[in-house]
Amino acid sequence: MTSEAITVLGLGNLGRALAETFLRHGHSTTVWNRSAAKASGLAATVAATPAEAVADGDLVVVAVLDNQVAQQVLRGVDMRGRALVNLTSGTPDEARELARWAEDNGAKYLHGAVYAVPQTIGTAESSINYSGSPAVHERWQKQLALLGKVTFLGEDAGRASGYDVAILSGMYGLIGGFLHAAALARAGGIKAAELTPMMLSWLTDMHPALVTFAEEIDNGNYAGGESSLAMNQSGLAMLIRAVETQGVPFAALDELKALVDRQVADGHGEESLARAVESFRGVASQRLAG
Amino acid sequence: MTSEAITVLGLGNLGRALAETFLRHGHSTTVWNRSAAKASGLAATVAATPAEAVADGDLVVVAVLDNQVAQQVLRGVDMRGRALVNLTSGTPDEARELARWAEDNGAKYLHGAVYAVPQTIGTAESSINYSGSPAVHERWQKQLALLGKVTFLGEDAGRASGYDVAILSGMYGLIGGFLHAAALARAGGIKAAELTPMMLSWLTDMHPALVTFAEEIDNGNYAGGESSLAMNQSGLAMLIRAVETQGVPFAALDELKALVDRQVADGHGEESLARAVESFRGVASQRLAG
Ligand SMILES: NC(=O)c1ccc[n+]([C@@H]2O[C@H](COP(=O)([O-])OP(=O)(O)OC[C@H]3O[C@@H](n4cnc5c(N)ncnc54)[C@H](OP(=O)(O)O)[C@@H]3O)[C@@H](O)[C@H]2O)c1
Ligand SMILES: NC(=O)c1ccc[n+]([C@@H]2O[C@H](COP(=O)([O-])OP(=O)(O)OC[C@H]3O[C@@H](n4cnc5c(N)ncnc54)[C@H](OP(=O)(O)O)[C@@H]3O)[C@@H](O)[C@H]2O)c1
Repeated sequence: MTSEAITVLGLGNLGRALAETFLRHGHSTTVWNRSAAKASGLAATVAATPAEAVADGDLVVVAVLDNQVAQQVLRGVDMRGRALVNLTSGTPDEARELARWAEDNGAKYLHGAVYAVPQTIGTAESSINYSGSPAVHERWQKQLALLGKVTFLGEDAGRASGYDVAILSGMYGLIGGFLHAAALARAGGIKAAELTPMMLSWLTDMHPALVTFAEEIDNGNYAGGESSLAMNQSGLAMLIRAVETQGVPFAALDELKALVDRQVADGHGEESLARAVESFRGVASQRLAG
Repeated sequence: MTSEAITVLGLGNLGRALAETFLRHGHSTTVWNRSAAKASGLAATVAATPAEAVADGDLVVVAVLDNQVAQQVLRGVDMRGRALVNLTSGTPDEARELARWAEDNGAKYLHGAVYAVPQTIGTAESSINYSGSPAVHERWQKQLALLGKVTFLGEDAGRASGYDVAILSGMYGLIGGFLHAAALARAGGIKAAELTPMMLSWLTDMHPALVTFAEEIDNGNYAGGESSLAMNQSGLAMLIRAVETQGVPFAALDELKALVDRQVADGHGEESLARAVESFRGVASQRLAG
């Protein structure tokens, strides 16, 4: 075992791209996957069990379906002295639990959230947020940088997943809105390809407003507000009426309007739309507690 | 009445910005508003009734709460020879109905959808999509260009509103996703201002994928697909589990997952996520009919 030996557990779409990148850069790499066939064509040492694979590498990188699988795969493996980097998507609590398990078993844990598709792993388009052991981040920074741009978010192993869950929700909001817009366009005889450039340019124009919303949310001060709750309440009412007339209802709009309605009913109509964040279950109480 | 006289009906936030822009560029401008007080401070002729105001202008620009109000305001007014430009937000059908009414009353009709806030009307940041009478668009292009970048979408008076409704739905998808992301971030002890730049950069990175989705939707061919329905189905399942664990459920995610689920259940799991558009009510039948 050389001092730069790397182990990759999981050879799905992501894991295989990780192993290929380490191999391309000359790292001695050991791989393990539940279905051994997925290792074919890789110039790696193929281990028969996770324990054998982990024995081979100082840095152990995991990318499997979910954190339950990660736990199963690692159960009973001798982790002493290992740096465990888990790139599996999941919740902040799952990451924290795995970090505790690693510590209890003599390993150091770093969790990563990947912003890339397998095809862009190892290129400048790939970016990975990490949180957890600063020692692992420092010791293995060079190797991790091979996979994509490294951002370290601090010592809480759950933090990268906390960002990730939020970013994914933002992403699926955008995608849901896009798909509904395309459905509406079709209902109105408009091609999605005609609509999309115009819509994306308008969405990009909105980014500065979202940056302002973020400040308002952090300060809990919604007094500014070029885009008031009342204005958006009537805009949403018009839009909901329009999409129903066009035969393409979308409950996400009703849900957003309900969040806005609640703030308007509480007397905040002239304040910023950003205040709708206070309508989410659990959020108001956290403000009080925090 | 000079040949370049302009009338503005409605002096809300938008209407007042329109009148100020025309006046700043030296156009003789007549205004009317239900509450006359809103005209104070404008160097315009203030008319007592909509009919008097319309008598003064060759170009009549309307910006009121909604198209029902626009109809009420214009009812019984002599419109002969007028170019009527309505910048009120509404549905495609409302715009078409007003266009028919205008034609029946001897006027030509153009509908506009405004992409600006009142503060940016008359600047390069403002952009307005028009559809309806090509004659009005041509004859008044210069004056309309004072308000913001002019895009003409064709002769169907409902088309600009059709684009608008779709763009607004895309916008509210983005906003809903953003607000939920901010709520989740707070639940995880992350500041919205820390999250937002990272999230917006990831959302911008997704724009090319949405352009590809648009092509797939127009072609009805979803065979490509780096981002498969099955992959997003499990991604959404993980995310829904995570947001529930964090105490910030968001029904928009469940709705999107249901759209995805339906396509996966129909055997399309390996196809592109864009196919979820086919799950919207009314859309599949339109494909068959079209
Ligand atoms: N793909 C991406 O671009 C990307 C981007 C960001 C995050 N991620 C995250 O990275 C993780 C892996 O993604 P992926 O795209 O590589 O997924 P994938 O292609 O579906 O691969 C799943 C992997 O998990 C293994 N696995 C599943 N169930 C197992 C079990 N019960 N026991 C042992 N191994 C099991 C599979 O092994 P078999 O081959 O034996 O089935 C395979 O190696 C996921 O959490 C995903 O959300 C992926
Ligand atoms: N503001 C923007 O940046 C923007 C951008 C894009 C589109 N729009 C659209 O433009 C339109 C106007 O927006 P806005 O921001 O100017 O709205 P606003 O500030 O709320 O003004 C509403 C206007 O409608 C008038 N009105 C309401 N009910 C009326 C009635 N029953 N009879 C006569 N007049 C009535 C109001 O008159 P009073 O003063 O007498 O109440 C006022 O002039 C809306 O359709 C909006 O969606 C606005």
